[in-house]
Amino acid sequence: MKPIQVGLLGIGTVGSGVFNVLQRNQTEITRRAGRGIEIAMVADLDTERARTVVGEGVRVVADARAVIANPDIDIVIELIGGYGIARQLVMEAIEAGKHVVTANKALLAVHGTEIFAAAHRRGVMVAFEAAVAGGIPIIKALREGLTANRIEWIAGIINGTTNFILSEMRDKGLDFEAVLKEAQRLGYAEADPTFDIEGVDAAHKATIMSAIAFGIPVQFDKAHVEGITKLGAQDIRYAEQLGYRIKLLGIAKRRDSGVELRVHPCLVPARRLIANVEGAMNAVMVQGDAVGTTLYYGKGAGSEPTASAVIADLVDVTRLHTADAAHRVPHLAFQPDSLSDQPVLSMSEVVTSYYLRLRVADQAGVLAQVTGLLAGAGISIDAILQREAGEGENQTDLIILTHDVREGTMDEVLAQVQALPTVVAPIVRIRKEELA
Amino acid sequence: MKPIQVGLLGIGTVGSGVFNVLQRNQTEITRRAGRGIEIAMVADLDTERARTVVGEGVRVVADARAVIANPDIDIVIELIGGYGIARQLVMEAIEAGKHVVTANKALLAVHGTEIFAAAHRRGVMVAFEAAVAGGIPIIKALREGLTANRIEWIAGIINGTTNFILSEMRDKGLDFEAVLKEAQRLGYAEADPTFDIEGVDAAHKATIMSAIAFGIPVQFDKAHVEGITKLGAQDIRYAEQLGYRIKLLGIAKRRDSGVELRVHPCLVPARRLIANVEGAMNAVMVQGDAVGTTLYYGKGAGSEPTASAVIADLVDVTRLHTADAAHRVPHLAFQPDSLSDQPVLSMSEVVTSYYLRLRVADQAGVLAQVTGLLAGAGISIDAILQREAGEGENQTDLIILTHDVREGTMDEVLAQVQALPTVVAPIVRIRKEELA
Repeated sequence: MKPIQVGLLGIGTVGSGVFNVLQRNQTEITRRAGRGIEIAMVADLDTERARTVVGEGVRVVADARAVIANPDIDIVIELIGGYGIARQLVMEAIEAGKHVVTANKALLAVHGTEIFAAAHRRGVMVAFEAAVAGGIPIIKALREGLTANRIEWIAGIINGTTNFILSEMRDKGLDFEAVLKEAQRLGYAEADPTFDIEGVDAAHKATIMSAIAFGIPVQFDKAHVEGITKLGAQDIRYAEQLGYRIKLLGIAKRRDSGVELRVHPCLVPARRLIANVEGAMNAVMVQGDAVGTTLYYGKGAGSEPTASAVIADLVDVTRLHTADAAHRVPHLAFQPDSLSDQPVLSMSEVVTSYYLRLRVADQAGVLAQVTGLLAGAGISIDAILQREAGEGENQTDLIILTHDVREGTMDEVLAQVQALPTVVAPIVRIRKEELA
Repeated sequence: MKPIQVGLLGIGTVGSGVFNVLQRNQTEITRRAGRGIEIAMVADLDTERARTVVGEGVRVVADARAVIANPDIDIVIELIGGYGIARQLVMEAIEAGKHVVTANKALLAVHGTEIFAAAHRRGVMVAFEAAVAGGIPIIKALREGLTANRIEWIAGIINGTTNFILSEMRDKGLDFEAVLKEAQRLGYAEADPTFDIEGVDAAHKATIMSAIAFGIPVQFDKAHVEGITKLGAQDIRYAEQLGYRIKLLGIAKRRDSGVELRVHPCLVPARRLIANVEGAMNAVMVQGDAVGTTLYYGKGAGSEPTASAVIADLVDVTRLHTADAAHRVPHLAFQPDSLSDQPVLSMSEVVTSYYLRLRVADQAGVLAQVTGLLAGAGISIDAILQREAGEGENQTDLIILTHDVREGTMDEVLAQVQALPTVVAPIVRIRKEELA
């Protein structure tokens, strides 16, 4: 049989990986897919660079629409990124009856509903394993491997840049700014690292996973997004002393009243496997009611790890594109006509526990004042760490770990605590998840 | 649409889990599968117990063949276990044109070739996610998630009983026999624990994974199988001092000359995630040439975790059974007409590194003799730990970690070392894997 014909839009880091891995493992991949997979056409504005990657045997064009218009092309891979032209091209490819494979998490987290609806109407597949956690087959695990389960929650380290920075801050006791510079020098952070360090990238991925886990639409605009730029080295140290690590987690959690969808730094017990995921690695924990806890670990970015996911999608499409559309795996795990209307909860409705660091006057009665206010709101305390004031100091750090409480309640109490004359600096608060 | 009709053969621990989870999560599963999944008929010799589990709405029979003969049944779940009647029933179900879902690792590791060939001929699916690592979707990850990769190796903690025993031996410093009794009391080990503690169960699972990873036939008879019954508490302690944990690993590794397929206790660097998988949990590491290292973690046994995998297979079959057989996912990941003839290597061809514990006379020159023999065979040494002899003792333990060497070479050298008059007890040797 003639190899399935693939058109590639954008041949940068990931695109080159896709081309190279497909070439290198051609025999093995064909033995699995039952049919060859051939990149027949590549579109990139930089046609010269594209030509360097693919050599002479592949048609290279500057105009992506020439790929979409080519009737011989069965599958279009979109690796351009962003919401702009990528969105138009994906929609046009779908309308042209092409199956689409994409690594574009931003696009799907924001415009996924429109894209999947169009694909459903047109009877084509949109596959996106590479959009979340790079080479880890987490989309497949959630969508197919855990279908028996009522998913309770997902918590993932899904941004390698921030995990690298947090690992280095802990290892070397350095501040955020210093480590960021180092990460940029090593290529772990981009020149403009905003999307990574502010949590936006992780929130795109958490949004996609929340849809697959709970059968809700993708709704990035409802996600709470918080990065790691304000984390202090001392909080990482205090957390360590209390038996915790600080990780940037993407969390999606089912509650009776709706779904929590949030990205923020988080204390995690040091004995959990996920707390020991270091450097630029990714890991996702999934809690299902039947299976219990599962965890998926691997490289979340990079040329060939991401290519691994893109090609897995190509093989899936090759294996399944002849099946009638109604019997394929639904894009977001649930059949499109049976999505849930569970709302995404506001942060004041979120229930979690907290790490609080208070700078307090070193005088009798402060602890009683603070814990009294917490107790008054029904917030119970899990652990307290009080440093002795240094010689000549009249202030000290008071660290409190709480049990679970509604965030709205915590907001109110912390306003009262902050107003105490003995609390002499802004309170630092970091959420904590036991992940048990 | 009428729910897909399922017949269940054997309703013990896992079968009850399947029935209960399907009932409990019925709505959610139907929203995913696009069609209801209904256990319409159950066969169990103990019809009374079966009736207690399923209540009045389900037909219960003692004769499994009545299920297979029922033309309304689309899928047969085999949860009887073993090679005997289970094998006949699976073959008969296939011949009757039923799709089969099974958790029977022993059956597939030994008779898989015959079973998959029959299923291929008959155009039905045989799904077996539950056969390896319980609720962890590792079959799907290997077969579909990592299709881009040339898999280099797989190393897994795939038997919960032995991992529980090893965790307890390390935690409490107890001997194997003492912990085994405790494990039996707690229900982590069976009354006859032979299959688990002798490594047979793990070898069944490693055999199945080796086939999917490398595109070779299942060949349990070629697997090297070694359990944990001879492990001493002191070796776990020494390993710890050297920065290692001892785990029972199932290993399948690609080499130029063939495939290594082996189950045995193994030193693993303590800093690896897999070394920190404790208690009855399972985890599988997979090394692919594109994706790098990935790891999959979860419960490897138990009623509902195993049911999670069985039901995932039911959903897969429900989604895909209308696709033409040639375009479904191949049972063993590779198309049946393109299996490889890579041989499984004998243990003397295996390349690995070693932990050696020698009981030696406490006298000058012993270390030079031993290391001289190793050096003579080209075996280089990674680390040495020599205990001072206790007061009044004239013997001591000498621990040596080696670098990689062919096992045949190691066998020859160890015979020479054992013959030294200064080596006063049988040498203990445990293989070591860096898993880097």
